[in-house]
This record gives sequence, C-alpha cells and structure tokens, in this order.
Amino acid sequence: MSSGVLEEYSRDQGPVTQPAMPAVVVLAESVEEVQHVMRCAHLFKVAVVARGTGTSLSGGAHAVSGCIVLSLERMNRILEVRPQDELAIVEPGVINADLNLAVAPHGLMYAPDPASHTISTLGGNVATNAGGLRCAKYGVTRDSVLALDVVLADGTLIHTGHTTFKGVAGYDLTALFVGSEGTLGIVVGITVRLKYLPIQTRTLAAFFPDFPAAAAGVLAIGAARVQPAILELLDGNTLGVLDAAFQSNLAARGGALLLIQTDGFGAEAESAVVRKVLTQAGATVEAEDGSEAAMLLDLRRNARGDGVDDDFRVGEDVAVPRSQLVHYAGELERMAAEHGVRLRLVAHAGDGNLHPTFWVNRDEGQAGMHRLQAALDESVRVALGLGGTITGEHGVGQYKLRWLAWEQSAEVLSLQRRVKEAFDPLGILNPGKAIT
Amino acid sequence: MSSGVLEEYSRDQGPVTQPAMPAVVVLAESVEEVQHVMRCAHLFKVAVVARGTGTSLSGGAHAVSGCIVLSLERMNRILEVRPQDELAIVEPGVINADLNLAVAPHGLMYAPDPASHTISTLGGNVATNAGGLRCAKYGVTRDSVLALDVVLADGTLIHTGHTTFKGVAGYDLTALFVGSEGTLGIVVGITVRLKYLPIQTRTLAAFFPDFPAAAAGVLAIGAARVQPAILELLDGNTLGVLDAAFQSNLAARGGALLLIQTDGFGAEAESAVVRKVLTQAGATVEAEDGSEAAMLLDLRRNARGDGVDDDFRVGEDVAVPRSQLVHYAGELERMAAEHGVRLRLVAHAGDGNLHPTFWVNRDEGQAGMHRLQAALDESVRVALGLGGTITGEHGVGQYKLRWLAWEQSAEVLSLQRRVKEAFDPLGILNPGKAIT
Ligand SMILES: Cc1cc2nc3c(=O)[nH]c(=O)nc-3n(C[C@H](O)[C@H](O)[C@H](O)COP(=O)(O)OP(=O)(O)OC[C@H]3O[C@@H](n4cnc5c(N)ncnc54)[C@H](O)[C@@H]3O)c2cc1C
Ligand SMILES: Cc1cc2nc3c(=O)[nH]c(=O)nc-3n(C[C@H](O)[C@H](O)[C@H](O)COP(=O)(O)OP(=O)(O)OC[C@H]3O[C@@H](n4cnc5c(N)ncnc54)[C@H](O)[C@@H]3O)c2cc1C
Repeated sequence: MSSGVLEEYSRDQGPVTQPAMPAVVVLAESVEEVQHVMRCAHLFKVAVVARGTGTSLSGGAHAVSGCIVLSLERMNRILEVRPQDELAIVEPGVINADLNLAVAPHGLMYAPDPASHTISTLGGNVATNAGGLRCAKYGVTRDSVLALDVVLADGTLIHTGHTTFKGVAGYDLTALFVGSEGTLGIVVGITVRLKYLPIQTRTLAAFFPDFPAAAAGVLAIGAARVQPAILELLDGNTLGVLDAAFQSNLAARGGALLLIQTDGFGAEAESAVVRKVLTQAGATVEAEDGSEAAMLLDLRRNARGDGVDDDFRVGEDVAVPRSQLVHYAGELERMAAEHGVRLRLVAHAGDGNLHPTFWVNRDEGQAGMHRLQAALDESVRVALGLGGTITGEHGVGQYKLRWLAWEQSAEVLSLQRRVKEAFDPLGILNPGKAIT
Repeated sequence: MSSGVLEEYSRDQGPVTQPAMPAVVVLAESVEEVQHVMRCAHLFKVAVVARGTGTSLSGGAHAVSGCIVLSLERMNRILEVRPQDELAIVEPGVINADLNLAVAPHGLMYAPDPASHTISTLGGNVATNAGGLRCAKYGVTRDSVLALDVVLADGTLIHTGHTTFKGVAGYDLTALFVGSEGTLGIVVGITVRLKYLPIQTRTLAAFFPDFPAAAAGVLAIGAARVQPAILELLDGNTLGVLDAAFQSNLAARGGALLLIQTDGFGAEAESAVVRKVLTQAGATVEAEDGSEAAMLLDLRRNARGDGVDDDFRVGEDVAVPRSQLVHYAGELERMAAEHGVRLRLVAHAGDGNLHPTFWVNRDEGQAGMHRLQAALDESVRVALGLGGTITGEHGVGQYKLRWLAWEQSAEVLSLQRRVKEAFDPLGILNPGKAIT
C-alpha cells in the first residue's frame, strides 16, 4: 500500500492534533468483508477506524497509530426504495445527495441535509448524527433512521430497529448507534424514513445591519410561531468571503443575512408572515425566485470556504438555547476582539446551532495559535454557561475531547465507558474518540 | 400499608399473567427520596418497579413479588416553561394533558399525545416511548425529549442530553432511557421540546364500506404526498361499541371511519386534497366543525372502552409497513373467523400502528382463552412476517416478552442484556420486563 494512500486516509477535514498513520487501509465492498476485518482485528487486538468520505470536522475519522482504516465508501448501493412504505434501505457509502436524487421521482426526500450533502456518506451521517439545513423542521439524522445493520467489534452482524415508522421492542439500540462515531460498531446497512418532497417552497433573503439584529429576527419568527424548513444566518465577514470566492455581491446588501425557506402547502402564507415580522424587525426582505434561491442556499453550503481546518483556523459547532442567540453572538464578537483573533459566523439559526470560525494569520506562529486556542476555549465555556453544548452536530471526534468533561459529569462519562465496554470490551473500535 | 393500597399498585391496565404483590409502595415526592429508595434497594438487592399512573397496557408496571413499587405520581410539578427556548422542564408525574394546558397560552404544544393523555404521566410516556394520534407528523415521545434527569440503580443522579434542539456530545443516553420501561433508571426530570400550536386545523370524517377500503384510503393520502397531523382508523365493530357507550350514530354512517386532521398554515389546502382523493377512493367525506371534530377525536381516544384487559380480552399493538395495511387488515379478519374470536380494530393508520382487540366470551372458560391466545400469537407472527413489529408504542412490558425473541435475534437480545448489566448490575430495576 503506497504511503500516499495511507497519508490520504490518515485524516479527515478536522484539525490534526495527534498525527498518526494507519497500518493499512481496507476499502470494503461487502458486509462479509467488514465482518472479516473485524474478526481479524478482534483476534489481533488492532484498532479499527471506520470511515466514510472523511468530511468530519472534528477528527472522528483521523487514524490512530497502526490502525486499520476501514473505508465504507465503496459500499454505495441504494438497495431498495419503497415509495409506499416511504422508506429506503442503503449501504453506508451512499452519498447523501445521491439518495435524494433517487427518491425525488417518487415525491420523497431524505430530510437530513448536512451542508456536506454532496460529499458525505450516509454511514458518516449516521455515525455523527449529522444535522443540516432542514433540521429545525424535519429533525436530525436520528429522527430519520428506522433500522441499522451493524457489525460489532467481534464481527457479529446484528440488525436493530424496525421497518415500520414506530416500534418500541427492546432498547433503542438504533438511536444509541446513531452518533456513536464508530466506537460501538460498524454501520453496514441503513433503513431510513423518507418525508414528502414539499409541494412548494418560498425563499426569503433578509438583510440586517448586523449579526445580533439578524439573530433577533430568528426569535421574531419563532414568536410568530412559524416553523421554516430552513433558517440560516450568515454574518458580514462570511458574506465578504463568499463574494470574493463566488463573485456574488451579498456584502453590499447588508451586514448580515438571514436565509429563510418555508415549504409545503402553507409555504406562501408562512412566507408572508415571516416577511412581515422581519420587516418590522428592521430587515430588508427580498423574495428570491427559484434559481436565485438555490444559488443562495448553495452559497450558504459553501460558507466554510475550501480550506481545511488546522492550527491557525478552526470552525466551531456550539449550540445554545434559542433565547441566547443574540447574547451569544455579541459575546463571540467580544471574544474575537479581546483575543485578537478573526471571526466569521454562520448558524443553523433555527436550531441555535452556531459555527463560528476563528482564525489567525499563519505567520503569527505559536503566539497566534495560543490566542486561537484561548478564544476557542472561551467560546465553548460561554456557550456551556448559557445552557449550550460543545457540539451541535459535528461530533466530539478527537478534537473536542478536551471539552467533553466541561459538559458532562464524571458519572455520565463513566456510564458511557461502561456502555462502550458492553459493546467493545477490547476497545478496538475508534479508540480515543467520542467519549473519554 | 393497607392491602388495598398494595393491591391497587400491584398492576397496571395490561393483562396479568403472573400476579404478584409488592412489599411496599413508595409515593416519592422529591428526587432525594427517589435516590434514597434506590440506595436502600441497591443495598438490600430489592427489586424496584417504577410507576406513573399505571395505564400501561403491557404489564410494564406490574409488581414483581416482594418489590418496592416506586410511584412518581406525586412529583407532578411543571418546573419551567421557556417560551422563547420552546422547551419545558417537568417532573415525571406531570400528566401529559396538563403540560399542554400550561404551554398552550404561549402558542406551544407538547406534541406526543397518547390516547391516554389525560391519565398518563410524562415519566410513563418517556419510559414507554409513547406514541399517540399526532405522531405520524410530529414524531413519538423520543423525538420531543431533549434531556433527562435519571436516578441510576445505585442512587446516583445523572443528567443526560441538552437544552438545545441539537446536541451530539457523547452517546445518546437520553434516547436509550426513552422506552427502557424502568429497567435502566428512574426518570425524575424531563426536558421536552415544544412545537408550535397550529394556527388552524381541519378535520374530515371519511366513511368507507369496510376496513380494507379505509386502509386503502390511508395509502391514497400518502400517494398524494399530504402529511396529516392525525390519521386514525376505526372499524365497524368499534363504531358499534362507541355508539352503544356514547349514544353516537357512527355505525349508521359507514362500515369504517377514517378520521383525518390536517393542521398549520396549509391545513385548508391539504384538507381539500385529502377530501378529493378519499372521495375518489369511494368514501363519503364530511368536514367536521370544531366541536364535532373534537367530539369525534374524543370518541377515538375512548375507543378502547373502559374494560381492563384480562384473560378474555386483549388489545394488541402491532405495526406493519404502511403498504401492508390493507393486506394485514384482511388477515386479521381471517384470523378472527378461523380462531372463533371476536375482533375490533383501531389504528394510528398514518404510522401503520394497529390496535386490534381480540375477545371471547367469559363463559367459554379455558377453551375460549386458548383460542384467544392462538389468535394473538398468529396476529403477531403475521405482522412480523410482513416486516412489522410486536409493539408499535405500548412497550414489551411483561405481557409481550414471549414474542420478543420472534422479533429480535439472539445476538441483539444478548447485547441488550449487556447494556442492562452496564446500568443495573444487580438486576433490581423492573426485573423480567422489556428485555429477556
Ligand atoms: C463543507 C462541509 C460542510 C459540512 N456541513 C455539515 C452540516 O451542515 N451538518 C453536519 O452535521 N456536519 C457537517 N459537516 C461535517 C461532516 O460532513 C459530517 O460529520 C458527515 O456526517 C461526515 O460524513 P463522512 O462520510 O465524511 O464521515 P467521516 O468523516 O469519514 O467519518 C465521520 C465519523 O463517522 C465514523 N463513521 C463513518 N462511517 C461509518 C460507518 N459506516 N460505521 C461506523 N462509523 C462510521 C468515523 O469513524 C468518524 O468517527 C460538514 C463538513 C464539511 C467538510
Ligand atoms: C385508554 C388508554 C389509551 C392509551 N393510548 C395510548 C396511545 O395512544 N399511545 C401509547 O403509546 N400508549 C397508550 N396507552 C398506554 C399507556 O397510557 C402509555 O404506555 C403511557 O405512557 C403509560 O404512562 P403511565 O404514567 O401510566 O406509566 P405506567 O403504566 O405507570 O408505567 C409504564 C412503564 O413505564 C415505567 N415507568 C413509569 N414511570 C417511570 C419513571 N418515572 N421512570 C422510569 N420508568 C417509569 C414503568 O415501570 C412501566 O414499565 C393507553 C392506555 C390507555 C389505558
């Protein structure tokens, strides 16, 4: 195996703090192959790091030294679409957007749509309980997963869950595997519930003078008791980055942008209410037609830019209770100023899930890195102090482990370890990730 | 403690197959009292059966011999309603409907609404992952629970989950506790996400010649890609029972009734589509005004009648993939005829969740009971054969344990036991329930 391949599979898109190389990369093509890998790994006590397409932003798919990287990307068949049952059964390597292409002709959609929907796998989405743009209305990955096929640490294949919408036989192992970041088993089959493709959508672009004003707009929509499908917030710096990259002219239109999409039979009426309350809240609101709207949402999905996070730039993923959005946005600006780091901010605002990106110039070296770390730590502490969480959707992975004990008590941490031991007594599944 | 009290707390509303008396009933009034009970129980290895209001239909709250029945019904305070954060924090003994009364003035609702919503507790709803009428659109209990306070088997108090809409730090212990039927810990605090009270609702009553035709109507609504909030199906025998009990005249209007409620900004438009497709499907469709609609839904909620299940009457709770509804309805009628038992049937049809009630006359004694058991067993086997589950929402409890291994593999059963051991090594929490 060439060292180029090993290198390529040694990391995901999250910051690397503990560089490590795998001993081998396996590109599994069948459930049996996955079972075989796990049986061998179990026998020889070798660590196994499952991997979709490595778009994780928290180092969940980073190699640990001498491990087997078990890539599921080749297991990418959509096994079944059952339009009347409103479900689909897929292999883990299927790309999120490909499933949506396959089910759209039936008037159906797979709702959870991480911004990485064209590049990330459903197995990775399941393993991280991925969120996305439509989650405030349609829920996160867990809410759409009905059943799983999982290969356990010793190679045993199990099936959890049900192919009915509801089912409560036994413990909800399906939900436990969702979000477990490859530490409890390898997901080799996924049964998802599909939702109805909305009969219509309405998209509004609301430009505000600044981020806190736009965050207040989110609360105004909530107070009007309208539930948009999409409610995304971009700050002025992000608009500037997008303008530079894609020749758009967003920054000229305002200091912060709230993108709202309503959908379904009530889309028009909901959109009218949203327009009214946001205008009252001081926004300049424009209705976008189909192609403009799609373009704006695509820009939002690309709001991370294409750089990969590293020592000098880190994208965060905190969430706060919605009432704290305005306050927290202000706090982030204060922190950036105090620590002398630069900040841009996008948010799945309907969920209170914020992605601030902090960065410093590379030529600042260690000093810059330390200021960056201090800003990151404070952003996490302040979010927790407001009743928030260290990770809304990206997962703890390797990078956020140092913050986990700030959020969870010693008792919860130890209970999680006992759960882990029940599934993986030898500790070979993605060691050093997700839990401490 | 009087034997009357012990008797009262010795069983829930499910059939009793292993009659047993508790040693003591504790009506806990605080988290500390619950912790104290668990510490003592742990020390003396005494079984503890948690209890809300005992409306379980599967014996989940039945006493086991010499146990402590730990009732949470007095811990019934709504601790906090946070309208801007769209969440509420409650003690476990709060009655489901009381929470809805408390949050309605804020334009909010707690979505999961079991037909027992005026008599069951949120702690019980969480422990069974209760479903209800609005689940097809709004999800089950698990989808509304953000965080839990749980007293573990040894008295340790932990907090799981997050007060944000999204959060993926650590394993989803919250989801694991939901539906665990008091076997992993005692739920002493619940943080729920609230949804928006719909701006309007539209209710249709569609009468069909028979149950299979009505079930086909459910699929027709699905094919039109309209998602009603409520989609309940009642067969002719149920209509007759309701008419007798409540002086209604439903049976005269048709052989089966499909009750449909659409809600939200699109309610009117959705209702028009539903009316059209159901008329085409052969139904007589009538729009119900507010009071009539409420009355019909109340009748549906009372469709179980007031008898408690026993050896001669058992209500079932299977679910099948939606495409199998028509076929399965036919199968149930065939089984009833073949086994010489009587049948009536209601269904949360939008979810494919059916509640057939089988019964025989009491004076038939053992012979009748055997025929009833044979019919029940077959109804479960056939549902499983169609890709269904033995329990859509009521839980396995004690009564459905004999069917669990028909649905779950030996590997899953053993994995569940290992999870149980990680939480409750002495096996004192509700032994002999939920899992084998
Ligand atoms: C531009 C961009 C935008 C993004 N936007 C979002 C967003 O909006 N919402 C969001 O939630 N995330 C987002 N992400 C993060 C990332 O895309 C998600 O976490 C995604 O779910 C990871 O999928 P993947 O296939 O790349 O998994 P990987 O990165 O390969 O792996 C992620 C984790 O899952 C485990 N894993 C992968 N496959 C399996 C399997 N089959 N069985 C068991 N474990 C497995 C890995 O071990 C690792 O712990 C974004 C990332 C990028 C680069
Ligand atoms: C008329 C009627 C209609 C019904 N309709 C529905 C319906 O539509 N959907 C549905 O899902 N169910 C329905 N049910 C069943 C029942 O109401 C639900 O299962 C309900 O959730 C039970 O709540 P409870 O407070 O009565 O709990 P109990 O019956 O007291 O207990 C149920 C289970 O939960 C455990 N438990 C209770 N409280 C706690 C706690 N605080 N911590 C840990 N474990 C606990 C018990 O040990 C037991 O295993 C109906 C029942 C009746 C009688």
